[in-house]
Amino acid sequence: MSSTWGEKVKISIFGESHGEAIGVTIDGLPAGERINLYELRMQVARRAPGGVIGSTPRSEADNFKILSGMLDDVTTGAPICCVIENHNTRSGDYSGLMTTPRPSHADYTAFVHYEGHNDIRGGGHFSGRLTAPLTIAGAFCRQILSNNGIDIGAHIYSIGEVRDTPFDMENVDKEQLKDLNTEKFCVIDDEAREIMQAEITKAREEGDSIGGIIECAAVGLPVGMGEPMFGGVESRIASILYGIPAVKGVEFGAGFEISKMRGSKANDTMYYDDGKVRTRYNNNGGILGGITNGMPLILRVAIKPTPSIAKEQDTVDLQTKENVRLSIKGRHDSCIAVRAVPVVESAVAVALLDMLL
Amino acid sequence: MSSTWGEKVKISIFGESHGEAIGVTIDGLPAGERINLYELRMQVARRAPGGVIGSTPRSEADNFKILSGMLDDVTTGAPICCVIENHNTRSGDYSGLMTTPRPSHADYTAFVHYEGHNDIRGGGHFSGRLTAPLTIAGAFCRQILSNNGIDIGAHIYSIGEVRDTPFDMENVDKEQLKDLNTEKFCVIDDEAREIMQAEITKAREEGDSIGGIIECAAVGLPVGMGEPMFGGVESRIASILYGIPAVKGVEFGAGFEISKMRGSKANDTMYYDDGKVRTRYNNNGGILGGITNGMPLILRVAIKPTPSIAKEQDTVDLQTKENVRLSIKGRHDSCIAVRAVPVVESAVAVALLDMLL
Amino acid sequence: MSSTWGEKVKISIFGESHGEAIGVTIDGLPAGERINLYELRMQVARRAPGGVIGSTPRSEADNFKILSGMLDDVTTGAPICCVIENHNTRSGDYSGLMTTPRPSHADYTAFVHYEGHNDIRGGGHFSGRLTAPLTIAGAFCRQILSNNGIDIGAHIYSIGEVRDTPFDMENVDKEQLKDLNTEKFCVIDDEAREIMQAEITKAREEGDSIGGIIECAAVGLPVGMGEPMFGGVESRIASILYGIPAVKGVEFGAGFEISKMRGSKANDTMYYDDGKVRTRYNNNGGILGGITNGMPLILRVAIKPTPSIAKEQDTVDLQTKENVRLSIKGRHDSCIAVRAVPVVESAVAVALLDMLL
Amino acid sequence: MSSTWGEKVKISIFGESHGEAIGVTIDGLPAGERINLYELRMQVARRAPGGVIGSTPRSEADNFKILSGMLDDVTTGAPICCVIENHNTRSGDYSGLMTTPRPSHADYTAFVHYEGHNDIRGGGHFSGRLTAPLTIAGAFCRQILSNNGIDIGAHIYSIGEVRDTPFDMENVDKEQLKDLNTEKFCVIDDEAREIMQAEITKAREEGDSIGGIIECAAVGLPVGMGEPMFGGVESRIASILYGIPAVKGVEFGAGFEISKMRGSKANDTMYYDDGKVRTRYNNNGGILGGITNGMPLILRVAIKPTPSIAKEQDTVDLQTKENVRLSIKGRHDSCIAVRAVPVVESAVAVALLDMLL
Repeated sequence: MSSTWGEKVKISIFGESHGEAIGVTIDGLPAGERINLYELRMQVARRAPGGVIGSTPRSEADNFKILSGMLDDVTTGAPICCVIENHNTRSGDYSGLMTTPRPSHADYTAFVHYEGHNDIRGGGHFSGRLTAPLTIAGAFCRQILSNNGIDIGAHIYSIGEVRDTPFDMENVDKEQLKDLNTEKFCVIDDEAREIMQAEITKAREEGDSIGGIIECAAVGLPVGMGEPMFGGVESRIASILYGIPAVKGVEFGAGFEISKMRGSKANDTMYYDDGKVRTRYNNNGGILGGITNGMPLILRVAIKPTPSIAKEQDTVDLQTKENVRLSIKGRHDSCIAVRAVPVVESAVAVALLDMLL
Repeated sequence: MSSTWGEKVKISIFGESHGEAIGVTIDGLPAGERINLYELRMQVARRAPGGVIGSTPRSEADNFKILSGMLDDVTTGAPICCVIENHNTRSGDYSGLMTTPRPSHADYTAFVHYEGHNDIRGGGHFSGRLTAPLTIAGAFCRQILSNNGIDIGAHIYSIGEVRDTPFDMENVDKEQLKDLNTEKFCVIDDEAREIMQAEITKAREEGDSIGGIIECAAVGLPVGMGEPMFGGVESRIASILYGIPAVKGVEFGAGFEISKMRGSKANDTMYYDDGKVRTRYNNNGGILGGITNGMPLILRVAIKPTPSIAKEQDTVDLQTKENVRLSIKGRHDSCIAVRAVPVVESAVAVALLDMLL
Repeated sequence: MSSTWGEKVKISIFGESHGEAIGVTIDGLPAGERINLYELRMQVARRAPGGVIGSTPRSEADNFKILSGMLDDVTTGAPICCVIENHNTRSGDYSGLMTTPRPSHADYTAFVHYEGHNDIRGGGHFSGRLTAPLTIAGAFCRQILSNNGIDIGAHIYSIGEVRDTPFDMENVDKEQLKDLNTEKFCVIDDEAREIMQAEITKAREEGDSIGGIIECAAVGLPVGMGEPMFGGVESRIASILYGIPAVKGVEFGAGFEISKMRGSKANDTMYYDDGKVRTRYNNNGGILGGITNGMPLILRVAIKPTPSIAKEQDTVDLQTKENVRLSIKGRHDSCIAVRAVPVVESAVAVALLDMLL
Repeated sequence: MSSTWGEKVKISIFGESHGEAIGVTIDGLPAGERINLYELRMQVARRAPGGVIGSTPRSEADNFKILSGMLDDVTTGAPICCVIENHNTRSGDYSGLMTTPRPSHADYTAFVHYEGHNDIRGGGHFSGRLTAPLTIAGAFCRQILSNNGIDIGAHIYSIGEVRDTPFDMENVDKEQLKDLNTEKFCVIDDEAREIMQAEITKAREEGDSIGGIIECAAVGLPVGMGEPMFGGVESRIASILYGIPAVKGVEFGAGFEISKMRGSKANDTMYYDDGKVRTRYNNNGGILGGITNGMPLILRVAIKPTPSIAKEQDTVDLQTKENVRLSIKGRHDSCIAVRAVPVVESAVAVALLDMLL
């Protein structure tokens, strides 16, 4: 009852990792928006595994079909449904799997929630693979936002302790974001990329994984967008971002750092710049009282290390009620933060379009 | 359109800082719950200003009337409406105020959003005073949760750079939380309290303010509560927490720190403890895949420094379109994090009851 | 969990017949709308009992306070909360009442739903008195709609078998609706009024009550308003109308009569009238595919006879589990359809403004 | 933004009459429910055209694929997505069609709403064909309801002026409803069937169509289901029923007839029957104050005649802005009420399960 999100743009995500197909219904996109299908597929491809350090070597070509809502590459206003068929996924022997839940996965909690009836193959509906439909929904929304002068981009802010150059919160612009959008391993600083990739490789070689932070920006937003209280931009964006598996933190502007500041330092003072109101610092990340102030929207998302690691771990056997050791086989991302970049951008895009309309 | 929150427990908050009254309608509380009105007023009083370092010296006795939904101290199942009347607030000369928006306040964004029609006196509907109705709603929900074995508590995790002893994420228990609930300046470590209070006093004396972090825990939650994706516990809680003014970050479990970890360290390994499944570390803060796993729910909230400071600041004059200097008079909290503790607890309580029902 | 309605204009109704107060929070009205408070109170007064045949002789001056959301008679954009205090309502001896539920009232169903905890005095939250807050919400919405060229009016289509002249579905206009809005016993045909009033008087004198139908129209709606399927104008309006106690039927345009027609008669054929598309007949009541076509919106609402009658009736005693006879004392409307006219108009107004924004 | 419905069971319908596919996502079905796929397809087949008088001779085998949410014929708790592929539908020459909207269709209103971007082929998203996904959603819900002792059935109450025997509102039972569920032309009285079919045949032969009323019942509902006001059973059911194209009226129990009654006749008096509370008459159709009272739920739905008729009609040419004559070719149902029976049952099923969970 919860794979749906949105008020004006309502998305409804379905599918399981090893089921027939996964996909999304997007209800509420405005009619008459021309969609560049090539670019749409490019954005979705950025999330797809393969071709990037940190990713699983599995090949999951995220080729999707558009079943409805489009005519001659233009939105009709009717709901858009996109489907990605799953292939080679009907593994026979998963019957015993659920007895030993993987630590830090949803295996145990889903088992209890669904009283054992959930599809556990590959994580089922809780699989990271379900971020593909979200990325599709976001790819539509991003193009429509871009048609309205709003652009979104993100980069890997950190992997483990290694940091990329952060966004200049006051001055990040459309061109920088567009450049980032063309990459699969999105960083601003090329040197940071190398160190990060070395860090990931090392983790993988040790049968381990590593976490990271994604920093996302949106520019071109009108002043005055958003609603007070629970309809604020931060509330809405956080509620969709926490729908992405592995997210454990969301902050805006200076985020947790602002808690260490004095007001005289934290306050974004205001000035006229060529007739337009701007602020210095942008510690509030473009949002005041839940409403946009025209400065870049800045947010950061903490992504936990992939829980599926080769190293042996403690877990329980739910049938025998005994403590056991578990070693997870298979090919897994060693750093999901890498591929989560377009997912975060997409979630932000869906939320922003929902609020803009 | 956004001062409402909830699916099963729907709250609808109204009022302005200097209007007739503020209040909240709470629709969806179960019938037949006995409410201890004394305790209810105690919890609301914890948020009220006065009597604590960091608070404004203004006296806003948050005395509320219960207009509906209760009979003989028992919920009837019908919506509860509570109202706090405002007193001495009809100041005559606010007409010119909006020309110079206060930095980092919602003054400018609300002005644009409402095209100048919003009530700006004291921040209007964006005032921190509107957290009083939220605290009332939370006070009802907390009692009902407590009747169901679920308890919530929070403490000031940090003020500026000064840290309290954090919660033991694996072992925080009901008794510790209940102890915290009786205080106005909630900390675990008495020594930290003194240093924090000195830090706040110093900021105030310098005409400044200071930020902080609140750490909140809930224990006694059933395993399996929550829904996948956007219906996850983190999504729902974050969406209500970001409705509290001054919140700039929300994290669960290890939060942003988890991004620095390897999977082998971050993973909460599982074991049987007296027949019950538990985890070590609880870096996931009690939630996996959006669903509770029976470990304590742990979250942290970053609160920015009060934007209203005595020190002179840059701002704009929206009428003359010139840059001006602003010095904010009046009595303001020098550290709103202190009084935000019961507000955070209340928001979490509303969200948890909404998901539990 | 259900005394709230709306997506853009969210109303949240609270209160019980004999509690402290009843009222409504209206979240989402646009800022900057000037409200004529005199007219507002006039519309609410039309629903209030007294001064009209069919009404209870009780005097419930529906004087309401506006607690928030208005400044100098202009909406601020923040939620509006209005409260009507109840007076002289704390009757002591209601303890035994619930043992014998009144036939066709919500007494029995509410008792089961709330497991006996609901406030039964005067029907509690199920009382027809709760239509007063809905009428207040509608009175605000009507003025805002009227400012946008949209007017709503209704009349008593029938009482028992006595019919008023129906609306001319093609040509009903703003003037006719405004005239109706000034009355307390709204009919088009003065002769019908007399016969209806005689019919009601007769029913009352026999210790009985009588039902009726209300016909409502809205003119000035833009073409293209509404959404497909469940977001259609009919869906939205019906969902709010059925929230009015005693409503047992809702139909649009020709309504149930259209089921008897051939397509060649039922179809509203189209033509240009001075450059504007119009239809003949308007059997669809201004809505096609859930979306307005620019013709008058026409709907009818069936109102059941007041269930509270003086005549003795069969009912059960829930304690003794025996069949008993019940005679309802007190002053009750003998025809609630009369006072339901402004309530229906108000519900329609809330729904239309919600869809228009 | 409106092809979605539901709070606990959320359905999201997509597709256009002549697009790639139509379908539905159903989010919120409980896990662990065994679904009889044969019966599921049988219920959907009842709506499919062909094999029944009144239906179009087109063959649209409504074969659907289940893409997600099921494992070994048991619900997993994850969203179920079902898709029906469209065949032979890419007609080339629809470019000029929109210039002459069909009377009483959504052609004109959708054109204005979507500013000309909607897919007009076959009615697009407004086509009656979109009731197939609703019927699929309903077929799932009906089985789950039936597992919980709740059964739904409907019959053609009338075609034009010809009436079937109505349900015995007090005593309709599961067996009668199950019998009706196996038919394609659902009536209680065989003689009425013949006269109705003759009436439909006559209309078709004259290039015309005819309307009808469907009567639906649900038995086995628990007492106390539903919420007050806008969360009442009638509100919720009406809101989904009006999402079905061609519905112009919805009434419960005695419906519009109750408006003609005196209270002493309309009131459903109560009595104990073998220890269980029952009412006489059931003029309220099983619902009091929005909440079920344990009597059969009874409702009626007015269905307008198919607007697509062979007879020439007046319409407008939106390009030339002239009045023109239109004759609609193609194969159309001459009485859509016939095939709407399982659609009405399905809408009711979705609503009831949504409220029951």
